[in-house]
Amino acid sequence: MRRFLLFFFLFPSLLLAQDSQKEDAFFIRQIYDEALTEGKSYDWLNYLTQRIGGRLAGSPQAAAAVEYTKQVLDTLSIVDSVWLQPCMVPHWVRGEKEQIRVVNSLKMGTISLNGLALGNSVGTGANGITAEVIELSDLEEVDSLGPQLNGKIVFFNNPMDPTQLNTFSAYGKAAGPRVWGASRAAKHGAVGVVVRSLTTRQDDIPHTGSTVYDNETTPIPAFAISTNDAELLSRLLQEEPIRLFMRSTCEMLPEVESFNVIAEIKGSDYPDEIILVGGHLDSWDVGTGAHDDGSGCVHSMEVIHLIQRLNYRPKRTIRCVLFMNEENGLRGGRAYWKWSNGKKEFHLAAIESDRGGFTPKGFTVDGHDDIFNKYFKQVIEWLPLLEAYGLAIRKGGSGADISGLKEQQGLLFGLEPDSQRYFDYHHTPIDGLDVVNKRELELGAAAMTSLVYLLDKYGLK
Amino acid sequence: MRRFLLFFFLFPSLLLAQDSQKEDAFFIRQIYDEALTEGKSYDWLNYLTQRIGGRLAGSPQAAAAVEYTKQVLDTLSIVDSVWLQPCMVPHWVRGEKEQIRVVNSLKMGTISLNGLALGNSVGTGANGITAEVIELSDLEEVDSLGPQLNGKIVFFNNPMDPTQLNTFSAYGKAAGPRVWGASRAAKHGAVGVVVRSLTTRQDDIPHTGSTVYDNETTPIPAFAISTNDAELLSRLLQEEPIRLFMRSTCEMLPEVESFNVIAEIKGSDYPDEIILVGGHLDSWDVGTGAHDDGSGCVHSMEVIHLIQRLNYRPKRTIRCVLFMNEENGLRGGRAYWKWSNGKKEFHLAAIESDRGGFTPKGFTVDGHDDIFNKYFKQVIEWLPLLEAYGLAIRKGGSGADISGLKEQQGLLFGLEPDSQRYFDYHHTPIDGLDVVNKRELELGAAAMTSLVYLLDKYGLK
Repeated sequence: MRRFLLFFFLFPSLLLAQDSQKEDAFFIRQIYDEALTEGKSYDWLNYLTQRIGGRLAGSPQAAAAVEYTKQVLDTLSIVDSVWLQPCMVPHWVRGEKEQIRVVNSLKMGTISLNGLALGNSVGTGANGITAEVIELSDLEEVDSLGPQLNGKIVFFNNPMDPTQLNTFSAYGKAAGPRVWGASRAAKHGAVGVVVRSLTTRQDDIPHTGSTVYDNETTPIPAFAISTNDAELLSRLLQEEPIRLFMRSTCEMLPEVESFNVIAEIKGSDYPDEIILVGGHLDSWDVGTGAHDDGSGCVHSMEVIHLIQRLNYRPKRTIRCVLFMNEENGLRGGRAYWKWSNGKKEFHLAAIESDRGGFTPKGFTVDGHDDIFNKYFKQVIEWLPLLEAYGLAIRKGGSGADISGLKEQQGLLFGLEPDSQRYFDYHHTPIDGLDVVNKRELELGAAAMTSLVYLLDKYGLK
Repeated sequence: MRRFLLFFFLFPSLLLAQDSQKEDAFFIRQIYDEALTEGKSYDWLNYLTQRIGGRLAGSPQAAAAVEYTKQVLDTLSIVDSVWLQPCMVPHWVRGEKEQIRVVNSLKMGTISLNGLALGNSVGTGANGITAEVIELSDLEEVDSLGPQLNGKIVFFNNPMDPTQLNTFSAYGKAAGPRVWGASRAAKHGAVGVVVRSLTTRQDDIPHTGSTVYDNETTPIPAFAISTNDAELLSRLLQEEPIRLFMRSTCEMLPEVESFNVIAEIKGSDYPDEIILVGGHLDSWDVGTGAHDDGSGCVHSMEVIHLIQRLNYRPKRTIRCVLFMNEENGLRGGRAYWKWSNGKKEFHLAAIESDRGGFTPKGFTVDGHDDIFNKYFKQVIEWLPLLEAYGLAIRKGGSGADISGLKEQQGLLFGLEPDSQRYFDYHHTPIDGLDVVNKRELELGAAAMTSLVYLLDKYGLK
């Protein structure tokens, strides 16, 4: 024992380091205890999903979500200021319930498919469109088939790869046709596009999501159909030519004003070093956006709430940002970057939660190479504190809403929850409160708060 | 490059080790690919839960589950033998729907509670019982209150600790009153026992589970009530004396014969070294035992199926055992141990899956100290292969059905899935197929198969 003390007498900094690590472990334990017993995230998510509902940018529900989250953040006394940051957003409306059906199968007659118009899609006109279907396995086939697409409805039937353990990787590889299929096919005279829903599940649930038109071609209507119906359509096409009827009255209305919701605790020692936590407040209209991204919003609000409950006074500025219009325009993110860069702000770190409210497995970290290489080592030093809660740290993208902050030369983090169930619900009518687990949600907020605590206490050096 | 080759020329064993690790990584990748694309576990679980249902030992459904799983295992051509191993099991029946209600609240009148008789409980008699309630916070209070319990219904209101990240730890610490409460309270003349359901969720769902009577006292009826009702009852008791009416017609019938279902692939090189994979086939009657433990059964069957699909010929004997009566007697486990020990068998390893069908996080490992210390190092060497799939290995208990195999001086493993949701469903009417995610289930089977592959290929040295 004496020798032990002598050791620390000779190397007092080690003793301090050890004390400090104990203190950190103790504080992080308190964060988790508090999140799991006094957390508010689930109650807030209940309100966002059950009382407000789907929150597509420009909708009355999106306005309600802005008002509700601002009011909640206003009740947190630790917050120095809460404000709304305006941005103009696209205002797309789905209109009447879409129709999509096979109209001429000799074997099976007329078959209604489970379909949804893709977000931003133009409508078909009140009479709908009917055309022969041509099946493609990927975006690359469009140009090779060229003229054969003329007058056709192009059906992209590329499945998500179920063998990818990270379902976001499979999503990234399969999302091309949903995003670019309509504009690419229109170049060759296609009259409509149908994509296979982006999920590894075989079921009857269609998944919407945004499609993007370029400026060169006339927009054509785009739908998603369920994976079961994609399989059915593909089988039918092997036997006979198939004609589809599609009808949607969706349309893009004039842009409207909306807002990011921002709450900030001013740092006591380094107010100019900002640590941002955020998610996006808008969601698709068909469900109630519980995982995407109600969870990320209440995670971020909970960070502020937990800091308050634990009487922690941050040295750096902690800012919670609930972004508007991530789903079909990213206008909130862009408005924020422009404003922040204009003020020459410095985000030491930004953490986005936009991968659902499942059990957190850690964080992905992003940044310019030199920044990443400089600071990643330090973040890794915190791992023992985080691993006790099942959290790992790896290089990887952060989140769309904060991606523009990379220019500010700080680190960008993405909360990384277990991804196995995410694409069962993503952009569907079943992304609701009942598929979010309260404990899993609370653990996500605790994970983010723990990282914020370490970033705030130690900074990045 | 030349220097690199020279290095391996001088140390060829390193080259071999590297080759071997590549081969292992490749094979494990194939296991996962196969499980996620050609796995049968979810289909089998569908049959067990939707077609057969709750499978309490002694019930017709338990017999159907024995027959069904035997038939499935018989279809797997790689299996050398499938057999039923008899065991006598308790035959407890729940009888008519239980009733439990507050009968005298001045403020609220009569209040029906959400309750279930605990498994093995005696009934109340056709007229039910009515008595005053006394609330206790834990088993330890029983003896200190002693005579005050006479003629009372004892209400154990000890919640599971929500701050434990591993919910099984919280369960273990809170389960005492459910298991021993009735016999302990009966010693002091209590006429009935009510326990708070074992879950961290606040809801209206009662959780059953076994209670154990000693031989010294006359058994008294025991119920579980939902956590919401436990809170309600506790609040009422703070205001006024409360009397409860309890009625159940459950009873223990004479023992009946049932079976473990066993399938075996004889090892080519070391047939006497057995690697067991297993789960338990029985479940509580109130739900359909999807997580507990239909998942563990189909995980274990899938191990055999994947080995077959990959044309892997095991060097050691791989044995799949579906145990009977884990929930309220462990008779299947005991029969198996007795039979296996009698034959002087050696289980090199046994892996039980009895913690649900959620995303696997790794394995717990158990064994006699000397065995554990001898072999754990080797198991840890496989970690890099398993970590790629999010799997860790830590010291910890394995599973009730294989616990008796510890005497055979091999290693015991428990599959460890994410535990956050397990006690939302455990022993309830809502433990059904709809709360099992297909991918998560498949990943559990792949994890077990990967460990079996490594154990089979390398043994334990």
